[in-house]
Amino acid sequence: MFQQITILGPGLLGASLAMAVKERGLAARVVTWSRRPESRAMCLNQSWCDAVFDSPEEAVAGSDLVVICTPVQTIVPLLVQIRPALAADTLISDVGSTKSLICREARSALEGHSATFLGAHPMAGSEQAGMEHAQSDLFEKAACILTPLDEVSSAAIAKLSAFWDTLGMTVSIVSPEKHDEIVAHVSHLPHLLASTLCGYLATQDDTWRTLSGRGLRDTTRIASGDPQLWKQILEQNSDEVLRAIEGFEQQLHHLKTALLNQNSLGIITQLERGKTYRDQL
Amino acid sequence: MFQQITILGPGLLGASLAMAVKERGLAARVVTWSRRPESRAMCLNQSWCDAVFDSPEEAVAGSDLVVICTPVQTIVPLLVQIRPALAADTLISDVGSTKSLICREARSALEGHSATFLGAHPMAGSEQAGMEHAQSDLFEKAACILTPLDEVSSAAIAKLSAFWDTLGMTVSIVSPEKHDEIVAHVSHLPHLLASTLCGYLATQDDTWRTLSGRGLRDTTRIASGDPQLWKQILEQNSDEVLRAIEGFEQQLHHLKTALLNQNSLGIITQLERGKTYRDQL
Repeated sequence: MFQQITILGPGLLGASLAMAVKERGLAARVVTWSRRPESRAMCLNQSWCDAVFDSPEEAVAGSDLVVICTPVQTIVPLLVQIRPALAADTLISDVGSTKSLICREARSALEGHSATFLGAHPMAGSEQAGMEHAQSDLFEKAACILTPLDEVSSAAIAKLSAFWDTLGMTVSIVSPEKHDEIVAHVSHLPHLLASTLCGYLATQDDTWRTLSGRGLRDTTRIASGDPQLWKQILEQNSDEVLRAIEGFEQQLHHLKTALLNQNSLGIITQLERGKTYRDQL
Repeated sequence: MFQQITILGPGLLGASLAMAVKERGLAARVVTWSRRPESRAMCLNQSWCDAVFDSPEEAVAGSDLVVICTPVQTIVPLLVQIRPALAADTLISDVGSTKSLICREARSALEGHSATFLGAHPMAGSEQAGMEHAQSDLFEKAACILTPLDEVSSAAIAKLSAFWDTLGMTVSIVSPEKHDEIVAHVSHLPHLLASTLCGYLATQDDTWRTLSGRGLRDTTRIASGDPQLWKQILEQNSDEVLRAIEGFEQQLHHLKTALLNQNSLGIITQLERGKTYRDQL
């Protein structure tokens, strides 16, 4: 499908992607660059890695697909850095959890170049980070959202759709703005609620944690995610995230009112609405 | 350990308990009663069941331990009903998720009788309900909270502690009031947040759910729990639950303010506090 794919930033997502690409034969060569020298040294021993470079510019030379797998705040700066080294018509994508800002700035960064940036967000991952947790089936049976701006060709969309589809993902196509609204609700809000719940419990008696059960462990698993990564995500999507928080607060207020007023019907109606939604996930 | 144990209400918890008791040889006989005739018929075919009775009074006759495993609102009414049939010095316990109201009312219900009620809350369970999901290892490696009132003898406490301990649980002893404060935070609050998140997402575009990932599924698993059971739990513990909601709301307000003010340090501090707590669970 591709002659050479460059993975910039082989962390959990990047290294898993490289593995999956190699396993499914989606590229003749997979090459990479990582900011940290220790990480570059580690790449040399990975079966998915055909070459590792000391600079991102060297790593993208000659590739027909470049996937930027770094934290969201460094995606566009990296794109600016590699622009002079990109071959004509290179397809560039990413795996960032936010899209509006990245897609808009990527367009500006590539103005006058024939390369195409097409944002992607595979809804896969884990609270764990790093190449050592990579797994080639990370993307299977999960959703992948592509967020083309208007000027992205249908050929580029078809090509990147087929790429993620072959990795086992269900591909959807929405605008970057709609993407950010959706993930503010189904991903960023759940994350910050889990984190806030843990933050609140941290202010209570320290021994209580030993009395908790599987419910608390499951609902808060994602709160173990990397705070630096999540800070960037929440900041880049703060408008939509704030709207989602406010919608949630209103819903919580309804439940609180029902409890205060001993309104059994109100309580059960809300619990049933939640169960109906969850049972359909 | 016991001659005969009666399980009243062999649902997920009751039937799992009966299985575990039988497997570990904690009683010579395990007998049961269920409100529903279909459920009583099902019990006849269970390897853990030595006898099933048509009334709770018949089921408790001759038992030295009775464990009431019904929804929280029916625990005390059942205790009132079985009182005339209880042998002298019977130990009665339960597996209810709330304790203050139950323990206080149980004391009144048994006044003048030599039987002892000692509340228990094994922190095990599942979003699934019913005997068909029972498993004998449900209680292993989980916490169990015993909530004796002042007049409960240390012999009774020691006996019931040993019972749950033998089933693989880590037993803690706190007052009923402290129990309700603790579980409002580590169990009831996580449950209602998961349910409220689902209820809120149900008000949004129906197609978004297909774009969610494992994070949403994990954080909301418990929202599939039985609304009738949870309504009773939230109502019986509404004072502590409301306090826990308010504490959570304040914490969420801090994060919202940090996001609104683009206060990166504030955001990261809160995410790190959440991660630190979660990593220690």
